[in-house]
Amino acid sequence: AVAAPAVAQTAPTIKWRLASSFPKSLDTIFGAAEVVAQHVKTATGGKFEIQIFAAGEVVPALGVVDAVKDGTVDCCHTAGYYFIGKDPTFAFDAAIPFGLNSRQQNAWLWEGGGMELLREFFKDYNIHNIPCGNTGTQMGGWYRKEVKTLKDLEGLKMRIGGLGGPVLAKLGVVPQQIAGGDIYPALEKGTIDATEWVGPYDDEKLGFNKVAKYYYYPGFWEGSAQLSIYVNQKKYQELPREYQQALEDACAYAHLEMQARYDVKNVNALRRLVAAGTQLRPFSKEIMTAASKAAFTLYDEYSAKNPKWKKIYDQWKKFRDDELLWFRVAEKSFDDFVHSIQSSRR
Amino acid sequence: AVAAPAVAQTAPTIKWRLASSFPKSLDTIFGAAEVVAQHVKTATGGKFEIQIFAAGEVVPALGVVDAVKDGTVDCCHTAGYYFIGKDPTFAFDAAIPFGLNSRQQNAWLWEGGGMELLREFFKDYNIHNIPCGNTGTQMGGWYRKEVKTLKDLEGLKMRIGGLGGPVLAKLGVVPQQIAGGDIYPALEKGTIDATEWVGPYDDEKLGFNKVAKYYYYPGFWEGSAQLSIYVNQKKYQELPREYQQALEDACAYAHLEMQARYDVKNVNALRRLVAAGTQLRPFSKEIMTAASKAAFTLYDEYSAKNPKWKKIYDQWKKFRDDELLWFRVAEKSFDDFVHSIQSSRR
Repeated sequence: AVAAPAVAQTAPTIKWRLASSFPKSLDTIFGAAEVVAQHVKTATGGKFEIQIFAAGEVVPALGVVDAVKDGTVDCCHTAGYYFIGKDPTFAFDAAIPFGLNSRQQNAWLWEGGGMELLREFFKDYNIHNIPCGNTGTQMGGWYRKEVKTLKDLEGLKMRIGGLGGPVLAKLGVVPQQIAGGDIYPALEKGTIDATEWVGPYDDEKLGFNKVAKYYYYPGFWEGSAQLSIYVNQKKYQELPREYQQALEDACAYAHLEMQARYDVKNVNALRRLVAAGTQLRPFSKEIMTAASKAAFTLYDEYSAKNPKWKKIYDQWKKFRDDELLWFRVAEKSFDDFVHSIQSSRR
Repeated sequence: AVAAPAVAQTAPTIKWRLASSFPKSLDTIFGAAEVVAQHVKTATGGKFEIQIFAAGEVVPALGVVDAVKDGTVDCCHTAGYYFIGKDPTFAFDAAIPFGLNSRQQNAWLWEGGGMELLREFFKDYNIHNIPCGNTGTQMGGWYRKEVKTLKDLEGLKMRIGGLGGPVLAKLGVVPQQIAGGDIYPALEKGTIDATEWVGPYDDEKLGFNKVAKYYYYPGFWEGSAQLSIYVNQKKYQELPREYQQALEDACAYAHLEMQARYDVKNVNALRRLVAAGTQLRPFSKEIMTAASKAAFTLYDEYSAKNPKWKKIYDQWKKFRDDELLWFRVAEKSFDDFVHSIQSSRR
């Protein structure tokens, strides 16, 4: 190691504005953008600063894609599936029902061709997308009454996000779009019968357990749910190569760390919820199987009419089949055994 | 975004030497150190360069910890469990039998207190440790004859690394320490009866399938296997804060990417091996259960005589119990269902 004499160099001072789709109270998700900003600032000696605005501060939560596209903000932190109204293809960047788990999603993006496909898709929105966080498999949400059979889903008014809505609609559920802060009163009054949000740590903060007794798992519409930073392409291209690298690597760090946060924080939150009377219930095989069929039927319908969806879905589907083949061998047999031993000790 | 006029700043030119414990032919693992070097170089505008040496080029594969401790090299890329001869506690940084899977290991390190515990342990070796890669659950290795019962393990001469050796020794296996390049001829001649290495992609390159027919899973001694970069502490402290951050984040990127590489590359390698006649076999419940008991007995023995082991093990064990409790709910029930549907379609 040789420390050469200091030399003069030019590094521009750059300040970006990031619009988050999340409130500060969601410390796990909102926090990932803060981690990115801190790391980028440190790595560039304070030259590249990203100022973070919570949902609604400069742009509405669901207006962030348009704001990045137009250059109103430099970048945003959001979940692709909030924008399925524009195109369901956005959901591949976050979650599609019965999709990839967190590790498989990473494999698809970094080595399985997914990043190239998504970057091509996002070009139409002037966006350079960078993965930044994952929640892992979410919970299936809070229900005022037990749901055991398909019959119990008929007419069920449920707040649900992403492609879980259209999938469950095929089974008779009436999906509701309700912003985070409005869910609790709707569930309390019985305006809705059920809601899903994220998992024990985030759900506990919204207090759903006080107005709904049954907590179902798994959230099969979010086997993993990825967050991303969407950067205006022109702004991204204007960055010095050094700052681009610092941003990409800071996002990788935040991506790893957010998953770790959930995997740790959910444990004690789940314990507290169960201790306070929450009844944990697995979805029945009847419901899961019907939902799975409905999901893949929906994907075929999208493929028939949406070439952008079809292009990604065809590659994604083959990738998923491959991953399940390999995971079944080493990874799953290890997990299965470890869990079986642990259960037998209880 | 405001681009200020260029200003002069001082950024030292630093060149480090990294000793890898791996040959260049292990492109997945060796490649992770190359990714770190590339990213760090780019993020610092070429000022911080890390030159990588393959195993044996400047330091023997297993001499890298001593070389970093002494400052012979600035850092190394290796797996902690190669150094259990110094102290079995090293293994927590890589893998211990029936330990954490890849995601749980990340959770332990980044949010579960593991990083702090390991950094304290590594201080005694003048090392600042940074996670840099994971293989996921490995395969259980290649066997010339089927192993069905505990009786089949008695006297079995097997090349096995890490704490898998002492665990299997409790079941009558005779563990052998053989360097990568010497395994094939030993297995061919029958000097050993079995060997484990990594997984389909790496194992295929060494050709074990040509001299052993049975390929077992899972490698229960490596439910995940983490690689790390160990940096000489003084050298780390001498780095400008910017470079430290660039290094940390580059390692996070490489950490993510290596897991993705394995999850993708193992698929087709496994297909090719099976097509060429390899017989896949799951370890029997009898063998897995006995090995699990042997492992936790060994850990108790270490705890009784090694305070460094005990300090980490006590915390780690509680963390593992917690993680299994939570993963069983959402994550595993999702994986179980997806795999069950996929299998029923075959």
